[in-house]
Amino acid sequence: MVNVQELSKQVSATGRRAGGREGRRAMRAQPLISLPVLVRKIPVYELVPDEAIELIHEESCKILEEVGCEFRDPEAIAIWKQGGGDVRETRVRIDRNLLMGLVGKIPSEFRLHARNPDRAVTVGGNNTVFVPMYGAPYVRDLDNQRRYGSLKDLNNFHRLAQMSPALHSASSIICEPMEIAVPKRHLHIVYSALKHCDKPFMGIVTARERAEDVMKMAGIVFGENFVRDNPVVVAITNCNSPLVWDVTMLDAMKVYARHNQPVILAPFALCGASTSASSVGAVAQVNAEALAGLAFTQLVRPGSPQLYGQFMVTVDMKSGAPMGGTPEAAQMMFLMGALARRYKLPWRTSGFHVGSKLNDAQAGYESNMLMHAAILSGANYIWHVAGWLEAGLCCGYSKFVTDAEQLLGWYKYAGGLSFEDFKEAMAAVREVGPAGHFLGTQHTLEHFESAFFMPTLMDFSSFEQWSAEGSKDHDTRGREKARALLEAYEEPKLDPAVDEALRDFIAWRERELPSSVS
Amino acid sequence: MVNVQELSKQVSATGRRAGGREGRRAMRAQPLISLPVLVRKIPVYELVPDEAIELIHEESCKILEEVGCEFRDPEAIAIWKQGGGDVRETRVRIDRNLLMGLVGKIPSEFRLHARNPDRAVTVGGNNTVFVPMYGAPYVRDLDNQRRYGSLKDLNNFHRLAQMSPALHSASSIICEPMEIAVPKRHLHIVYSALKHCDKPFMGIVTARERAEDVMKMAGIVFGENFVRDNPVVVAITNCNSPLVWDVTMLDAMKVYARHNQPVILAPFALCGASTSASSVGAVAQVNAEALAGLAFTQLVRPGSPQLYGQFMVTVDMKSGAPMGGTPEAAQMMFLMGALARRYKLPWRTSGFHVGSKLNDAQAGYESNMLMHAAILSGANYIWHVAGWLEAGLCCGYSKFVTDAEQLLGWYKYAGGLSFEDFKEAMAAVREVGPAGHFLGTQHTLEHFESAFFMPTLMDFSSFEQWSAEGSKDHDTRGREKARALLEAYEEPKLDPAVDEALRDFIAWRERELPSSVS
Repeated sequence: MVNVQELSKQVSATGRRAGGREGRRAMRAQPLISLPVLVRKIPVYELVPDEAIELIHEESCKILEEVGCEFRDPEAIAIWKQGGGDVRETRVRIDRNLLMGLVGKIPSEFRLHARNPDRAVTVGGNNTVFVPMYGAPYVRDLDNQRRYGSLKDLNNFHRLAQMSPALHSASSIICEPMEIAVPKRHLHIVYSALKHCDKPFMGIVTARERAEDVMKMAGIVFGENFVRDNPVVVAITNCNSPLVWDVTMLDAMKVYARHNQPVILAPFALCGASTSASSVGAVAQVNAEALAGLAFTQLVRPGSPQLYGQFMVTVDMKSGAPMGGTPEAAQMMFLMGALARRYKLPWRTSGFHVGSKLNDAQAGYESNMLMHAAILSGANYIWHVAGWLEAGLCCGYSKFVTDAEQLLGWYKYAGGLSFEDFKEAMAAVREVGPAGHFLGTQHTLEHFESAFFMPTLMDFSSFEQWSAEGSKDHDTRGREKARALLEAYEEPKLDPAVDEALRDFIAWRERELPSSVS
Repeated sequence: MVNVQELSKQVSATGRRAGGREGRRAMRAQPLISLPVLVRKIPVYELVPDEAIELIHEESCKILEEVGCEFRDPEAIAIWKQGGGDVRETRVRIDRNLLMGLVGKIPSEFRLHARNPDRAVTVGGNNTVFVPMYGAPYVRDLDNQRRYGSLKDLNNFHRLAQMSPALHSASSIICEPMEIAVPKRHLHIVYSALKHCDKPFMGIVTARERAEDVMKMAGIVFGENFVRDNPVVVAITNCNSPLVWDVTMLDAMKVYARHNQPVILAPFALCGASTSASSVGAVAQVNAEALAGLAFTQLVRPGSPQLYGQFMVTVDMKSGAPMGGTPEAAQMMFLMGALARRYKLPWRTSGFHVGSKLNDAQAGYESNMLMHAAILSGANYIWHVAGWLEAGLCCGYSKFVTDAEQLLGWYKYAGGLSFEDFKEAMAAVREVGPAGHFLGTQHTLEHFESAFFMPTLMDFSSFEQWSAEGSKDHDTRGREKARALLEAYEEPKLDPAVDEALRDFIAWRERELPSSVS
């Protein structure tokens, strides 16, 4: 069994109390450890009875049968015609038997490979993988300044992903390297993810040729034949709610699905604006959107692995601002989880995604509201679990490492309770008796290191001790830890020939591609 | 149905955006509203199967039969002898039939009265009441200074409790009025709670005569006859784990139980130090301690209302420091909730209690970890849900109002999902169709104010807007809101004759009592 405590100590070895040169030396002396995928051993929480889930499913089917969904891409429309959809112009109405027949082809779990074979994960079932955030134009940096992201920041975040035991992916665009021209940016993003981290990574979906570049780069790393059939990258496609799959998303979907690569079919819903002002209504709509996209992938490549997904935030109905860790976001996750189980699909939700501008109390309240629901709703791929601030516009270094440590706690939580040593624990009560203490018992000596989660970035010391150490708030401690981790970072081995081939490919493509979007 | 949104707006009317004179005027113009008790409409989460709960129950019974529990008070020992306990000196071994027979006399719910009859609450069943923290010697004040608490601070916290719609109690010693001599302090604490807040309050347990003073003051407010039989105050008694009920706690227990007032029987467990280093083992021990205390109350007054309770934190096994919002604390809550249901007892746990020194990210993560579990484990009396910092040593003004707003979100969460307008929401999808937006639909117009929780102390505005407003972190916004609320506070009516009688009683007792503890 994985000792989360041990990992927690290791990852924090360069933290507050063991900083400086010694801390870095200690960190380097330890082997870099990555946790295997989290296997949840606790039951899921069913917020509503099965009949309520059936009712939502029924309404989703009716939407697709009666209203239909837009597929704004001639190739997709041709595929739907061929596949049996009721097509009128770009509107596709889908009969529920056709729909469920296609969705039923999707495997309920799949193996996601990594360039380091030890970092491969199985997505689905009781497994949960944790993936850092994606897509921030801004960063909140090591000096607590908010500015545009750079390639250096992106490299740093990939390094931090590598050094965070409970993160199972490099993600890809953790922040945007804003100094690089948009048409060429994807090459450097993917290279950074592959170079600085040996965990699974994520794809690019902003244009068909960029998705193709991703598959070519993956081919260089994994072998061209391998990536024709074996999942090595996860891509995200967002439905434009309500009920529109646009050409950009469909293009990316086709590229990845043809390579048998999993795509997350995730309506990005601003509930109240792009859905009705009803949590249940929003879920029924988003479910329809996701199912339509999933069905389409099975026309492209039957049996290809896909992820049922959602990203749903409520909207402040006065200002239009998206909100983060609200109770409704949590409630909707429970519905989506139950629907995913009904369809036997691996599914993605989001964890620590917040509206807060800072890694402050708001961020903490919001983060846990969402992650608690994500874990208890049995999500398989929990995204945006490191760094996210400002509704995704900003990635914070301090938030990143804060989140990464919290994930270790979720390992303990979702790992369930151990009854294995229960008899021994009760024997200790008899041994100690009334008014005694347990610190010297055999049971305590055997279990004190593993019994309880002991985060080190969180501060439980006395006020006096904490004051003596500089009265630092959690945000400050987070920045210090991020800095120390980056100083201690060592790059995972990458075959020099592969590295060279990747660089050659990038150089070649850079010459081909324009320097600005035409 | 209560409109949480409306309340959220009201309580925040003097907040950031509507501060100053106008804000105060707006606040005064509105009637002060208090939410009725939260009625949970969502299922509880069962972390472990029933057999695991039975196993824990079995081990708890064995402890009480074989090891027994200390009752360090001659009167309690006499009561146990009379009542059928196996008594040897101060050790009482309790047969499970005797134990469960006594525990079975406790009502599974009771009505807790308040001096304002509209503020009375029913404790038990699907009801949850929220109660501010208790017992902090220090405060983190409106200027973010940490210093000893004073009577002025205590008055302020009772005012904030009055102004927080989702708080159902004044608690009592929210912070210690440190300038008042200990022997006289309880008089001023109880007076402050009764004077500045018209919600239920909590008792004092530090000495028998202080508990008697509380009942006399309650008699002045509610009528001497009324308080002989009707619950008007909740008192807290902590078992000294492992397995010791001391004379101070037993004295208080006897006073309150004889008046038919509910006592929380709450082992205060530092898991790993005063229990074994096992979450399950800790629960089995704490359960035994609570049951022994509960059984005793039924020998004192059969049928008196009591609360099964727990306060369990894990201990950093290296420093001995208590930790706050850990995964184990959450897991143990689920076990205690299941045990409470097995015994058909109303039960108390704690919500937003954290180890953090500040109202920062750590506090947010910790708070929600615990409250999420408290709600899903079906707790009836969730204590320490406003103000708590530093493992209870400090009450923060900012934390207090932060927590109080979060509670409104838990109303939404635990209120469950509404399917009432589901058909209308789906009609809106048909009306809007692909690529439309929902802001103008009839359904949205009807539901936009109530569909989603819109906290106002949390900031979801754009970075630019937030910067223009001063780039304030959540902690700063919390202090501003606390200040604004206190400026807008209006005292709830208290019959002048009752007020005078309370003051007379205090003056009389002050003359009688010593100025220092002998």
